[in-house]
Amino acid sequence: MEQRRLRVGIAGLGRAFSLMLPTFLGDHRVELVAACDPREAARQQFAIDFCASTYADIQGLASDERVEAIYIASPHQFHAEHAEIAAAHGKHVLVEKPMALTLEECERMINACKAAGVSLIVGHCHSFDTPYLSTKNLIQSGQFGAVKMIQAINFTDYLYRPRRPEELSTAEGGGAVFSQAAHQVDIVRMLAGAPAIRLRAEVGRWDSARPTEGAYSALLWFANGAFASLSYNGYGHFDSDEWTDWTGEMGDQKDPSSYGGARRRLNTLKSAADEAHLKASGTYGGDTYKPLPRNSVGAAHKHQHFGPVVVSCENADLRPLPDAIYVYGNEAKERRPLALPAVPRAEVIDELYAAAVLGQAPLHDGRWAKDTLKICLAILESSEKRSDIAL
Amino acid sequence: MEQRRLRVGIAGLGRAFSLMLPTFLGDHRVELVAACDPREAARQQFAIDFCASTYADIQGLASDERVEAIYIASPHQFHAEHAEIAAAHGKHVLVEKPMALTLEECERMINACKAAGVSLIVGHCHSFDTPYLSTKNLIQSGQFGAVKMIQAINFTDYLYRPRRPEELSTAEGGGAVFSQAAHQVDIVRMLAGAPAIRLRAEVGRWDSARPTEGAYSALLWFANGAFASLSYNGYGHFDSDEWTDWTGEMGDQKDPSSYGGARRRLNTLKSAADEAHLKASGTYGGDTYKPLPRNSVGAAHKHQHFGPVVVSCENADLRPLPDAIYVYGNEAKERRPLALPAVPRAEVIDELYAAAVLGQAPLHDGRWAKDTLKICLAILESSEKRSDIAL
Repeated sequence: MEQRRLRVGIAGLGRAFSLMLPTFLGDHRVELVAACDPREAARQQFAIDFCASTYADIQGLASDERVEAIYIASPHQFHAEHAEIAAAHGKHVLVEKPMALTLEECERMINACKAAGVSLIVGHCHSFDTPYLSTKNLIQSGQFGAVKMIQAINFTDYLYRPRRPEELSTAEGGGAVFSQAAHQVDIVRMLAGAPAIRLRAEVGRWDSARPTEGAYSALLWFANGAFASLSYNGYGHFDSDEWTDWTGEMGDQKDPSSYGGARRRLNTLKSAADEAHLKASGTYGGDTYKPLPRNSVGAAHKHQHFGPVVVSCENADLRPLPDAIYVYGNEAKERRPLALPAVPRAEVIDELYAAAVLGQAPLHDGRWAKDTLKICLAILESSEKRSDIAL
Repeated sequence: MEQRRLRVGIAGLGRAFSLMLPTFLGDHRVELVAACDPREAARQQFAIDFCASTYADIQGLASDERVEAIYIASPHQFHAEHAEIAAAHGKHVLVEKPMALTLEECERMINACKAAGVSLIVGHCHSFDTPYLSTKNLIQSGQFGAVKMIQAINFTDYLYRPRRPEELSTAEGGGAVFSQAAHQVDIVRMLAGAPAIRLRAEVGRWDSARPTEGAYSALLWFANGAFASLSYNGYGHFDSDEWTDWTGEMGDQKDPSSYGGARRRLNTLKSAADEAHLKASGTYGGDTYKPLPRNSVGAAHKHQHFGPVVVSCENADLRPLPDAIYVYGNEAKERRPLALPAVPRAEVIDELYAAAVLGQAPLHDGRWAKDTLKICLAILESSEKRSDIAL
């Protein structure tokens, strides 16, 4: 039976949208029917690519009667306002991580969607990735006993990718805790399978030219007695993709010899304005943006991921990798291959479609994502106060 | 110039001695001249192998006039008493890690050696391993900037190796914190290059048949602003030697397909007594012990290690591996090969010989090792009290 297509509008045609575009192009359960963006060039590109309506602001988009759901991919600081506007117009909301910058904003978004009777889903986030979802299902089968300890690590070049100034300002929602812990915390708490109750953390800010968090380590305790150790380092030196068979975050095969590219590129720029321009020009509608040809969808051969994770259960360690789950049991170790993705991030559409069209409750709903933000904020607070934070 | 040989006596011919034996056999700066052990079979074997004197107890060994230094490799709970007796007889002391079970015992050992004017060195410990010592030297060169963050991980089958009952009882100095954190903490604080000032940790005890710590995660802060994340899991599932090119702890090449051996062997045993017997019979002088032929010395081709470590400095990540240091700098990554060891653990003899014969102050002295024990005890205390421990 042919499924009907969900009509989606896009709020913000920047980098997050660029990363979701292969999904929208490849997944026939959705259809892009409209978009808004303050940049005229991006709107023109979108109108050409999708024969779709475009608007200068969220009000226009939200008023479009064809749109059933809005993917909010505007800068972090606009998520709450844009979600409220979308909900007020009866549109389902898919909002990028981090959900918002404060818990109060999250609450407003949850209430707005509840009042309007629309679904609220927060993502893409790497906890949608099939390796982590499959690991969660293995754990829930009960065959490996209770989760006891989780180890999550990620070493990337996050801080040296081109940024707008606000992305380097923690007060404006920038830095590795808002942007990257949002992934790692979400994965870890999904695998722990119980509410997080307590946290201790330390953050690292050691490049004064980019004065936000580039790194953190955290201990996280859960109501079921499990604990987790999370570490992230975005200062662009060691690359932990070495421990995931050189598969990059986007499921791409990495070339280990192309070392230091992010820093090298940044060193060619003279100012923060140049850097913001570089970022804008490389995203959808920008001078140097190359539209993805439709047949390149699926070029990422493996699943996306967010660094090495080991879940220690009573009777096995489970290790999600981009193409398999490794099960290290009491007697034997086993590689359980995963079906490779036909469309990247199809798991996001699974959840959006199930919620908006089939009326099923999503896993990554507003309450879920608010609790992840709560933990991210606690990372900042614990480091500042030098003590445990009760959650 | 031929160096004179230091005459060493051995207190305890058990597993620790078995692991140090290739060093004593291969390093011509030392000569084994006497030993004590309660087991007659071990004494007989030693007398045959080394044409050396043997004694039933430490008093006899310490009274032997030929002995200049005593390697104390007796069970943990005897370290303090044996060190005091050795010092009282004017012998230099090389004592296995952990130095002792309480800080008060450490203090007694330090005072006894100071009063007697003899050297006190605590080891072997993996912080003696050349990859970590070389990394420390690279850091101290200053070319990479200050240390900011350290990540240390180790997943092993520690808890399922054959044990005596006391090794599975924390109160008697058993478990992963006393036995394994002693290595990891020592490495991390040596690399941090400043006193540890604060710790938060959680321990894991999840096999009621082996009711001591099998795992822990810890955050550790240092006076220079650096912080470290340490995680250890000895429950015998995932093996992090996968991330050190399948080089085992002893510098041996591991066969990844020989999975689960420790648990399988343990499952063939009926009782704790059987297990203790298995352990004893496989060590020096035991029924199934095979003396190492002298020409096997150096069969371990790479340096020993204690799991993956990444030291993040301002301008580079440094990764000590068993045959090289990887330097991930701002522009390039570089593999700096290490000369391979002619004799395993020769670094211990370097320090012992320099102290006992040449009068040079050791790095791994009593104060140093006492501070490591303090941190290990704080891991237990933080987990119990659920709060930071000031150091």
